[in-house]
Amino acid sequence: MKLATYKDGSRDGQLLVVSRDLGTAHYASSIAHTLQQALDDWNFIAPQLHDLYVALNQGRVRHAFPFEAGRCMAPLPRAFQWAAADAYAGHLEPAAGQSVPVGPPRLRQGAGDAFLGPRDEMVVQHEAFAADFGAGLAVVVGDLPAGSSPEQALDAIRLLMLANDWCLRGLQAEAPVDASAVVQAWPATAFGPVAVTLDELGGAWERGRLKLPLRVELNGRQFGACDASEALFDFGQLLAQLCRTRALGAGTLLGSGPVCAPAREVEGRREWPRGCGSLTQQRAIETLQGSPVLTPCLEYGDTIRLEVKGRDGRSLFGALAQTLVSPD
Amino acid sequence: MKLATYKDGSRDGQLLVVSRDLGTAHYASSIAHTLQQALDDWNFIAPQLHDLYVALNQGRVRHAFPFEAGRCMAPLPRAFQWAAADAYAGHLEPAAGQSVPVGPPRLRQGAGDAFLGPRDEMVVQHEAFAADFGAGLAVVVGDLPAGSSPEQALDAIRLLMLANDWCLRGLQAEAPVDASAVVQAWPATAFGPVAVTLDELGGAWERGRLKLPLRVELNGRQFGACDASEALFDFGQLLAQLCRTRALGAGTLLGSGPVCAPAREVEGRREWPRGCGSLTQQRAIETLQGSPVLTPCLEYGDTIRLEVKGRDGRSLFGALAQTLVSPD
Repeated sequence: MKLATYKDGSRDGQLLVVSRDLGTAHYASSIAHTLQQALDDWNFIAPQLHDLYVALNQGRVRHAFPFEAGRCMAPLPRAFQWAAADAYAGHLEPAAGQSVPVGPPRLRQGAGDAFLGPRDEMVVQHEAFAADFGAGLAVVVGDLPAGSSPEQALDAIRLLMLANDWCLRGLQAEAPVDASAVVQAWPATAFGPVAVTLDELGGAWERGRLKLPLRVELNGRQFGACDASEALFDFGQLLAQLCRTRALGAGTLLGSGPVCAPAREVEGRREWPRGCGSLTQQRAIETLQGSPVLTPCLEYGDTIRLEVKGRDGRSLFGALAQTLVSPD
Repeated sequence: MKLATYKDGSRDGQLLVVSRDLGTAHYASSIAHTLQQALDDWNFIAPQLHDLYVALNQGRVRHAFPFEAGRCMAPLPRAFQWAAADAYAGHLEPAAGQSVPVGPPRLRQGAGDAFLGPRDEMVVQHEAFAADFGAGLAVVVGDLPAGSSPEQALDAIRLLMLANDWCLRGLQAEAPVDASAVVQAWPATAFGPVAVTLDELGGAWERGRLKLPLRVELNGRQFGACDASEALFDFGQLLAQLCRTRALGAGTLLGSGPVCAPAREVEGRREWPRGCGSLTQQRAIETLQGSPVLTPCLEYGDTIRLEVKGRDGRSLFGALAQTLVSPD
């Protein structure tokens, strides 16, 4: 099923069930007011939401209304845990004919108090902070005990979402000398209009990897068609790392980091990925190619649009489209 | 006023108002069911809670009952943002006659999905993880805009709490080579029974610093009387760092890190602090003293008890008392 949250002036919004084609929606308030409420009691509430979803897809629901992504908050507007990984290695130098060396995945805790909706502007105080988008995926999990295996972790995934994890590269660069910079460098994360259960993905979901391209457009022009299947770590492995020493509470979010396939050696020639999930990855590849860095930083007014289409050609999560703006 | 949350089988518990002497309590359910609900709408709800608090202290509330710290969850059992600083420098080497050099404070995002109550056991999978307590303070803030000043941040503080921020020093030591270790090294934080508003502190609260000792007992014996006033950074400064690039949502928690006064040069003699908020600080001081490191790591069954008494000699937050246990 597909779930979204409409803005209603409250901090957690109103939970909606959205039809598979994203055409119509219906409030879930007779079942659960918020997505966190549904996640807290998933085994009881999810079947009821699913019944509504089936009826909505069949056009059998009275009071259904056209779904508008512009009215959405993030599907889960606030989360009690938000962590992000660095699951892709598009910016790493592969040895000739080798894959990128793999250690444990990098994980970072973030703040879950105020996610952005799919059409919310991204406000950054200074252009010099060098804001960069981070086009990736994120999972929402149910309760997961400490020390769970990757297989157990995969079973705990409730929902998959499209994410834009904004990073201030200017501050990230200060991190070695400024002990506050790491926390300051990731100011906000936005999420696509709908969160989807894994049964919506069919064969495109394979053991914790989404086998679909994530399309990135910058100012209306294609920036990349990023192959999401090329993660160094699947979501089961990432979650097992996150829960190694502690249980994860229902509604924990884990992001993949920017999607980017690694470069490859094919018949003696270096083959570069067809797109990057962040400017930083693109610039790193330009450096690896030995060319001057051509990709500029973002400026106020730049727009970024992310979308994943299913194998049927239909938008899976709806589009996440944001403009970078000054606070004034 | 003083607020606590009783276990009731739900994830967020039941909000209580507790009398100043921690003797009696009353459910706040006619006003707000949970502390997050109160924080989301503080200006409307806090005065009602305060009226109940005044009546409770005067013995005018029917159905008041004896307050039991053993039935408490953390005052805020889940938080949408939990960050911790390293506000004290007891483990740093001071230059002769100088204070410790001060750069920006170190900040770290944590997970807010499952805090421990004041009597909950601390479960750690392996003794080799080298669990260490972290006796400190934490503030709960209301909405704070991005880029707020330390003064504005001080005004946004709603509540002060006693915190035990557990750290797995064995994993922390792996962090330079294991990119997941930083996230895994802080598995849980416990909080004292009650959260208090700043007007409860009188002169003991001075511009974001608590001028009282935090008593630490290990297995029933005094480990330290840590002077909480000796923070390198006050909570206003710490919050201003945390909100430098992003707004903080109501209910954001920020911890001080383990309380420990710095060593000082007094009349040519080095004067060491009278207590440390963690074993690690104590061991660092032993190293600075040039003596062998005598303080052992914690073992299963060890108990740690934290308490702050006000100038009237009464317990401010109630006692936070935990035992380290194996999962079996």
